[in-house]
Amino acid sequence: MPSSPSTTPENAYVALLHGPDQPGLVARVASWIYERRGNILHADQHRDRENNIFFQRIEWMPASAAVPADPHSPALSAADAENFQAFAHSLGMHARIASTAHRTRVALFVSKYDHCFHDVLLRWRAGEFNCDIALIISNHTDLAPAAASYGIPFHHLPVNAAQKSAAENAQLDLLRRERIELAVLARYMQVLSPDFLAAFARPVINIHHSFLPAFAGGRPYHQAHARGVKLIGATAHYATPVLDDGPIIQQDVARVTHRHDVDDLVRLGRDLEKLVLARALRSHLEHRVLAYANKTVVFD
Amino acid sequence: MPSSPSTTPENAYVALLHGPDQPGLVARVASWIYERRGNILHADQHRDRENNIFFQRIEWMPASAAVPADPHSPALSAADAENFQAFAHSLGMHARIASTAHRTRVALFVSKYDHCFHDVLLRWRAGEFNCDIALIISNHTDLAPAAASYGIPFHHLPVNAAQKSAAENAQLDLLRRERIELAVLARYMQVLSPDFLAAFARPVINIHHSFLPAFAGGRPYHQAHARGVKLIGATAHYATPVLDDGPIIQQDVARVTHRHDVDDLVRLGRDLEKLVLARALRSHLEHRVLAYANKTVVFD
Amino acid sequence: MPSSPSTTPENAYVALLHGPDQPGLVARVASWIYERRGNILHADQHRDRENNIFFQRIEWMPASAAVPADPHSPALSAADAENFQAFAHSLGMHARIASTAHRTRVALFVSKYDHCFHDVLLRWRAGEFNCDIALIISNHTDLAPAAASYGIPFHHLPVNAAQKSAAENAQLDLLRRERIELAVLARYMQVLSPDFLAAFARPVINIHHSFLPAFAGGRPYHQAHARGVKLIGATAHYATPVLDDGPIIQQDVARVTHRHDVDDLVRLGRDLEKLVLARALRSHLEHRVLAYANKTVVFD
Amino acid sequence: MPSSPSTTPENAYVALLHGPDQPGLVARVASWIYERRGNILHADQHRDRENNIFFQRIEWMPASAAVPADPHSPALSAADAENFQAFAHSLGMHARIASTAHRTRVALFVSKYDHCFHDVLLRWRAGEFNCDIALIISNHTDLAPAAASYGIPFHHLPVNAAQKSAAENAQLDLLRRERIELAVLARYMQVLSPDFLAAFARPVINIHHSFLPAFAGGRPYHQAHARGVKLIGATAHYATPVLDDGPIIQQDVARVTHRHDVDDLVRLGRDLEKLVLARALRSHLEHRVLAYANKTVVFD
Repeated sequence: MPSSPSTTPENAYVALLHGPDQPGLVARVASWIYERRGNILHADQHRDRENNIFFQRIEWMPASAAVPADPHSPALSAADAENFQAFAHSLGMHARIASTAHRTRVALFVSKYDHCFHDVLLRWRAGEFNCDIALIISNHTDLAPAAASYGIPFHHLPVNAAQKSAAENAQLDLLRRERIELAVLARYMQVLSPDFLAAFARPVINIHHSFLPAFAGGRPYHQAHARGVKLIGATAHYATPVLDDGPIIQQDVARVTHRHDVDDLVRLGRDLEKLVLARALRSHLEHRVLAYANKTVVFD
Repeated sequence: MPSSPSTTPENAYVALLHGPDQPGLVARVASWIYERRGNILHADQHRDRENNIFFQRIEWMPASAAVPADPHSPALSAADAENFQAFAHSLGMHARIASTAHRTRVALFVSKYDHCFHDVLLRWRAGEFNCDIALIISNHTDLAPAAASYGIPFHHLPVNAAQKSAAENAQLDLLRRERIELAVLARYMQVLSPDFLAAFARPVINIHHSFLPAFAGGRPYHQAHARGVKLIGATAHYATPVLDDGPIIQQDVARVTHRHDVDDLVRLGRDLEKLVLARALRSHLEHRVLAYANKTVVFD
Repeated sequence: MPSSPSTTPENAYVALLHGPDQPGLVARVASWIYERRGNILHADQHRDRENNIFFQRIEWMPASAAVPADPHSPALSAADAENFQAFAHSLGMHARIASTAHRTRVALFVSKYDHCFHDVLLRWRAGEFNCDIALIISNHTDLAPAAASYGIPFHHLPVNAAQKSAAENAQLDLLRRERIELAVLARYMQVLSPDFLAAFARPVINIHHSFLPAFAGGRPYHQAHARGVKLIGATAHYATPVLDDGPIIQQDVARVTHRHDVDDLVRLGRDLEKLVLARALRSHLEHRVLAYANKTVVFD
Repeated sequence: MPSSPSTTPENAYVALLHGPDQPGLVARVASWIYERRGNILHADQHRDRENNIFFQRIEWMPASAAVPADPHSPALSAADAENFQAFAHSLGMHARIASTAHRTRVALFVSKYDHCFHDVLLRWRAGEFNCDIALIISNHTDLAPAAASYGIPFHHLPVNAAQKSAAENAQLDLLRRERIELAVLARYMQVLSPDFLAAFARPVINIHHSFLPAFAGGRPYHQAHARGVKLIGATAHYATPVLDDGPIIQQDVARVTHRHDVDDLVRLGRDLEKLVLARALRSHLEHRVLAYANKTVVFD
């Protein structure tokens, strides 16, 4: 199985909680962990005052991690996970809990553009991402040889209007069979249908260009150039049924001038897309991102 | 007359030219200057390949500057200006020419917000802007005492739906009487009518917030916060009859997180608005900005 | 007494703690607050793994704040402050505790440069800083009229080699008489002696330029220009007996090119100095900065 | 021969000139080109007022390019090159002239770190660099397989104290045999000797980390972390006999906080090193960089 050097040798637990704010939440969560002889490594809270929601990311070293919860998350004991969920529920909170020893199983979706593809895989190989990139899905064959050089299974699933639904079903079969927990659209040039997103029911991270002002319609870099923008940007977000409108995880911009032609904007846009996607992916894999109400809390 | 220390002691000429590209333009302009014993200090060219337009900013020290063209631009001799215009015309080019010894006459439009107001005036007093800020126009009286402390005439011209046209006529009278060459809207919270812009017929610089994605409607910082944006921005542009859609001169952004509430976004937005307006104003006053086709060339 | 609009209407408590790490610290602090019916608003932790030090900033709404601790901090009850200190001590932790209703008493030190001076005072008047700027101390008289326009007492204390010690004693008298809790050197062009710093025994924030590479000796902007640097920077830090080597609070940079002459570097440096000093001052006043081992933890 | 898709299909000439400033230089250069029926595409000037030096980058489309100057620069006719050099000499100027159809021959020096190595090669393959990467030289064998996957000859030349001089001679032989015009040190962990630099007599671009303040001695990221810096940086410069003190081509920084441990600084430093080296290399290959007096003019 392809795997990168681990960046997190420790077997710690990370929980992301959110729910209605009430006094005592920080104390109760911390005490629950302390009473079980866990040692809190990091804890970060946020309150959305407007909506009175409490958010927390808490990372701790458990006293023990004896009984494997499942073969793919050997470090998180089933009892610990169930107990924590029950505890969070008793506080009226939603919770996700994971072990840092677990490597998230990721599927990379690509088309023909290879800049985000190489950037994700080289960073992964350098140990920047705590995940297994289990497979690559593409609607083209162009990147098959490169995928082979990284040692990662490549699946060619062509998509066209007539058989989009069939292609998405084939994708879903692959994702389920490989127990994929996260899909990353690394400049995958197809829109995933609402049905696909509902059936997959796992996070999907997408990257796209962004401009001030925004441009509707095709050829956005041409439009940005025609408008003489002085900044171009990229946004990484979770895919939702509304195109390019999901919760924003990361954004960045680069400065441009009248000297930059459309090709330059595209080239600088590639650098932005790589950096912004890499940061968003890393934040997600470190369990730092909590999406709610079409926005995110990104704990740093 | 209020005046700031001069940043450009030299009496140089600056010309901004643009027109259809053709071979020999650089040589002919440079030779024209050289033959008149001028010494070129800076020259910068740009070609819009798509539209085949040539742009040039050229700055030179003339051999002499004997006969004042007009009392407000003593350093640009009338003959030199006419000769250069005729020469540019012979090349099929539009040209603007100015002397760096001339201080552009500026009117500052404000309402109640004072951050851009103070920022522009303090920078002006520090010698960052080669201009005279001849008067301040406001639809409110709040900033009258501060204007007095800077020693600048303050004109209170209230604006409401019933008498907007009358107010704009009063503004135009003031601008003409004071021979204003540039209006700067330093968070002036009124929209200037197309009639006003056409009658003034001089550049108007405006500053406003910008977001990725863009938000229509009121309370943009609230919308940006609700959407969980990770960047907020500001854009300085020339005002045109289409609201907030004129040629962009300058843009910048600041990074925000879920920790920033709406007040923080507004506060960080103020810093952006100050910096971006100051940079745009300085570029304009140094004759670095050439607007065409709803975009700009900003020579640096 | 001069005062700016308050940005923190709530009467919350903020504590900054640090000490040897041990299991249960988060739980014990949170429980201590919860048991006294306080409600935690924010809590942020950091562990320095190398040195095994635990850091925490915790902000909570106390159940009551009945007995004023002192007339200048009416909202922090003396009993609450003593109890929390005793509790922190029992955990082996150093602690500082303050009420957000308390306005830190600040002295501004200036010389002739006025950019940081105006920037701090305008932001303060706009409500960005939760403090009282109680007095201004200068070794020159240039800024006395501007200080008067802000309504703040101005003290002219000339400094020269012969009587530096006498001048510093006069400064110390003023700072004590006015119960100053923080000194801000807003481009104050004198070095404070180790004796002064020891006698004042309160934080002193300084701002200075920074370059890559660093330049020793005088006229740093000239040196940076001669070296052709592509970035210039500014650093805000706490003053220590070692010149410009105290714990760093904030840094930022601006891009420059060969087109920028020394005057441009100085002008861009002013903007950096203003922004970096303002951010550092705001972080300090919100009790976000914990200095240790010649570095800082800045909670955001 | 390895080659990337060309980004500059046009066969234009680019000249970089500098010398003592005098009136008429712009006119004479432009007229010289115009008289030979060349069409100027870009021209950019700079004057170093302090030292009275004139700099120019000028790019033009020649009327013809008939007789190849040499087989590796087929587009620059020998006569054109000689004529231009003679002309520049007559103006008292140093000049370099090249055709954009010529692909600079580059040698990449690497050790074990592969981030800059992959970044340069992927960008080159994507057509961002107008060059041939003719060979890779390394003092280790680690990157030999990756070099093979890019199809580029890899030369393993071990370096140690005893035989450093022999290794450098072997390197020089390779560079001469392959007619290398530029060496790029992509995290090559050996210092090139003054003898090597003198014998090679071609530009060498290096990339290294930069901090504010600067740190002497080893393990700079550890020192930066111990000092609590809030920014880390990278600098690309031309190698000179004085270590890390050559003319700066590009610099950039990234923001860090107390949350970043040494590994994070190293990881963020890698991203900076990639971006800064790529920008410097591209500027060099587009003949935009003119080094003089230990600084650079980088035309944009």
